[in-house]
Amino acid sequence: MKVTIGQINSTNGDITGNVRKIVAAIEKAKSDGSDLIVFPEVIVHGYTSQDWFQDPDIIEHSLDALDDIIRASDGITAIVGTIRPNADNDGRRLYNCAAVIHNGELLGFADKTLLPEYDVFDDPRYFEPNHATRRLFEVNGVKLGVVVCEDFWNDKTFWKDRLYEHDPADEVIEMGADVVVSINASPYNKGKIKLRCEMVAHRAKRQNVPIVFVNLVGGNDGIVFDGASLIADQEGDIILQAAAFEEFVETVELDVGRPDARGISGAECEAIRQALVLGIRDYARKNGFGKVLLGLSGGIDSSLVAALAAEAVGPENLLCVMMPSPFSSEGSIKDSEELIKNLGCESRLEPISDTFEVLLEQMKLNKPTKGGESLAAENMQSRLRGVILMAISNAEGRLLLSTGNKSELAVGYCTLYGDTNGGLAVLGDVLKTEVWEIARHINESAGREIIPNKIIDKKPSAELAPNQFDQDSLPAYELMDPILELYFERKAAPSEIIAAGHDANLVYSVLNKVENPANEFKRQQLPPSIIISKNAIGVGRRRPITHKYRRPTN
Amino acid sequence: MKVTIGQINSTNGDITGNVRKIVAAIEKAKSDGSDLIVFPEVIVHGYTSQDWFQDPDIIEHSLDALDDIIRASDGITAIVGTIRPNADNDGRRLYNCAAVIHNGELLGFADKTLLPEYDVFDDPRYFEPNHATRRLFEVNGVKLGVVVCEDFWNDKTFWKDRLYEHDPADEVIEMGADVVVSINASPYNKGKIKLRCEMVAHRAKRQNVPIVFVNLVGGNDGIVFDGASLIADQEGDIILQAAAFEEFVETVELDVGRPDARGISGAECEAIRQALVLGIRDYARKNGFGKVLLGLSGGIDSSLVAALAAEAVGPENLLCVMMPSPFSSEGSIKDSEELIKNLGCESRLEPISDTFEVLLEQMKLNKPTKGGESLAAENMQSRLRGVILMAISNAEGRLLLSTGNKSELAVGYCTLYGDTNGGLAVLGDVLKTEVWEIARHINESAGREIIPNKIIDKKPSAELAPNQFDQDSLPAYELMDPILELYFERKAAPSEIIAAGHDANLVYSVLNKVENPANEFKRQQLPPSIIISKNAIGVGRRRPITHKYRRPTN
Repeated sequence: MKVTIGQINSTNGDITGNVRKIVAAIEKAKSDGSDLIVFPEVIVHGYTSQDWFQDPDIIEHSLDALDDIIRASDGITAIVGTIRPNADNDGRRLYNCAAVIHNGELLGFADKTLLPEYDVFDDPRYFEPNHATRRLFEVNGVKLGVVVCEDFWNDKTFWKDRLYEHDPADEVIEMGADVVVSINASPYNKGKIKLRCEMVAHRAKRQNVPIVFVNLVGGNDGIVFDGASLIADQEGDIILQAAAFEEFVETVELDVGRPDARGISGAECEAIRQALVLGIRDYARKNGFGKVLLGLSGGIDSSLVAALAAEAVGPENLLCVMMPSPFSSEGSIKDSEELIKNLGCESRLEPISDTFEVLLEQMKLNKPTKGGESLAAENMQSRLRGVILMAISNAEGRLLLSTGNKSELAVGYCTLYGDTNGGLAVLGDVLKTEVWEIARHINESAGREIIPNKIIDKKPSAELAPNQFDQDSLPAYELMDPILELYFERKAAPSEIIAAGHDANLVYSVLNKVENPANEFKRQQLPPSIIISKNAIGVGRRRPITHKYRRPTN
Repeated sequence: MKVTIGQINSTNGDITGNVRKIVAAIEKAKSDGSDLIVFPEVIVHGYTSQDWFQDPDIIEHSLDALDDIIRASDGITAIVGTIRPNADNDGRRLYNCAAVIHNGELLGFADKTLLPEYDVFDDPRYFEPNHATRRLFEVNGVKLGVVVCEDFWNDKTFWKDRLYEHDPADEVIEMGADVVVSINASPYNKGKIKLRCEMVAHRAKRQNVPIVFVNLVGGNDGIVFDGASLIADQEGDIILQAAAFEEFVETVELDVGRPDARGISGAECEAIRQALVLGIRDYARKNGFGKVLLGLSGGIDSSLVAALAAEAVGPENLLCVMMPSPFSSEGSIKDSEELIKNLGCESRLEPISDTFEVLLEQMKLNKPTKGGESLAAENMQSRLRGVILMAISNAEGRLLLSTGNKSELAVGYCTLYGDTNGGLAVLGDVLKTEVWEIARHINESAGREIIPNKIIDKKPSAELAPNQFDQDSLPAYELMDPILELYFERKAAPSEIIAAGHDANLVYSVLNKVENPANEFKRQQLPPSIIISKNAIGVGRRRPITHKYRRPTN
């Protein structure tokens, strides 16, 4: 039996375009002599469509589209993630399901049973769980056991903590499935590609059953699906490994008996870089932006975003704007110019000094001083830069990329309506120490200095007051980032972070900054961040602004 | 049997402060000779705490707090909304429950069964549904049937469409409850106060049982709980009606046999005004802002916000900043000054003309012209105002109120990082036609002109280009608002809106504006709006930016 992975990059709501891609993949599978092609979860409609799932108009169009896919499936079996209405009077209006199509005929639907409601997921807002529990479909004498995403992710022999009692994948194997088909929309985060491979291989081997695990690929606002679909045989060997972060339509014989030699690179740093590049590229492309811009300060954050953006949309479509103020160091322009040369992108100089002076004078605000009481004037510089960048964005139809990193956003070391401005926060989920690491990795893999080492090695500074450095106000990033990582990604309690070896005063001081409503207030008005971790700032982490809980040592 | 409504205004995370209020209310109930006091849902912790419900530290503190409440409850029965841990290995980590306390002893917990996951609600993200179904507690020979919020809201004889099959309130009555106790965190939206009264009276009468229905009061970011708790006797008469939008701790004898004469005013306009005032007041107070500011343009939106803010925090704490540009009409200052006089608040003049000219010249942008290609320069004016307002906010620690209305935000007629700046979007859920209505209502109920009629009657204009009026770019608000109302509040499909009598071209043209990703992009970066409707922009309505679905006639 030959099986094809239909790992395609869909766009939310673009039903016509998505069906076109599905049909093209079916044609390719047929020409490969495939028996079965499997597509990701809710591929017709777009998994991250959120409240669009409640729009009667789009639901109707999505249903019509299934007919086109059925017609295209003569001579092959196709399993396609989609939605279908719930005909009952009570419950949510839709099921999240896999349509099982054989030789131009719809055999039926396998509905999703376990509906995730954590991190970025809100399935119970839209979907009714599977009541009928139909999951087994016999095709040419082979029993296909079909499960949708979360239904595969609750193996009690693999996970320590589980959110649900049932394991639908276990159940379908007990019902006699010869092959398990798992359709997914599983977003990238650090370590996830390896985790999925282990999870699939573990079950295949344990239950002695081949598993076809197909995942979505593509960026959707901040959520990046990495693809990296795979097929494991009953020994647990991965016999077809799809590429990560790109489309992949390839076929394998289930009995091939040897692992796919390609594998997937283990370097997380490279995966993060690819996630960020795909995140930028798809956000620009799917929203109709050919060109992008950003403010280049001479610091590491904006420099890394420039390098990633040049890779994502091409250097010819990238504009870097340098906006020195009276407090910018000499290096801020010189180092930026070197980077611009290395990238081969466009640049422009728009100093803010004149405007800043006019406004400072008019408003009679304190001038920025070293460690002085000049927050208003410091932020004003950042906001005037925001005004300039948005004027260029408006005048030229360019997408503005914002450049702040997660460490800054976590502790509120950023200016709202200033450096946070933009359509996409490229590094909004990347810690400062990771920023440095990725920058070095980019230079290493290029075998030359793309991001000047002077920029990487520079002492971090916002340059909004004389001789201002980040570490005047913040702990060293090397000390702070591991605390932030435990707090955000693992939702660790302060006591657990301290038990992991971090200084108690430092832990409480960092968390009090993070949890200060004045900083939550800023985070709630950020553009989407490209997500590379669990429980990232934004849609994966939801907190009110108004909240008075204070950690013991405030 | 004497029963007390404990309708108090809690603050998320302020466990100490919330317990102090609970204990004070218990003391008052005792001094009234009450047998039973009932508090709202998750009152100890704060119902809108979102992901704080996953923080082990705060959960522990919340549990400790229950001991203080138990100790305070000698000689009385108290029913208090709180959370408790789920001891099982699978499922969500918490139950949302009512603690039933009698005479200094904890009798047990009634867990919430139906977990809402729509509009602003995300209960399944945090809570495991009731498995034990304990809901009946006998106290002094009276069987109290205790249900938590949504558990009361699924009466099949009252609602046409239901989200759930079961009706826990029915079940507790069948189990023999003498009195039903329903604890709630039910936010205000238009028509909701009346709806609740009808729903409670309907069940009391139909099932011949007294009902104690207690609701939360207070603003939490954009969500305003209106209180308006009530007790109905078995005839369905409302024998105790709590005030709306304020705290209320009063006692009634269940057999009193006569309706509470006070009732609640039926005027929705007045309810909206009170919701907005409480929303501003609580956001400022709970986040530690004594003073607020806003940009006053001479238009109706900012004028209404000024009037509401003066009521919420006192005119002495309100600063109105006038920031004329070369395109401001003469009336924009004159009319503003009249309003400022009427309110008795502080004001300041900060023209943007100088800064605007410097920057326009430097960037060589097209000057604003009537109907010209000058979007960048138009928006720049709004953004420079944003810079000035934030500088004052930073320098003086004032909360900036943003003044855009829902009609504008819906169709993207606003400048991101300009007039959308602020901590709270006061009118973010108020349609333009409602803005006028509330302004007139304020003048009428004051019996004098607070908001000058000249401002109310003025032709709407952003004044960012010569002779610019809203209706150059938008349909008349009187035509657009009913479409927006059907689309947002009732989630109506275009075909349903057209069937309701609206012009098809107009409907599609308005919805295409609303659904344009460039406008969703702006809405995702707004501060919280004070919510007065169902499915409001913000936390109650969730859409991706990246989405390509296009209505038939684009």
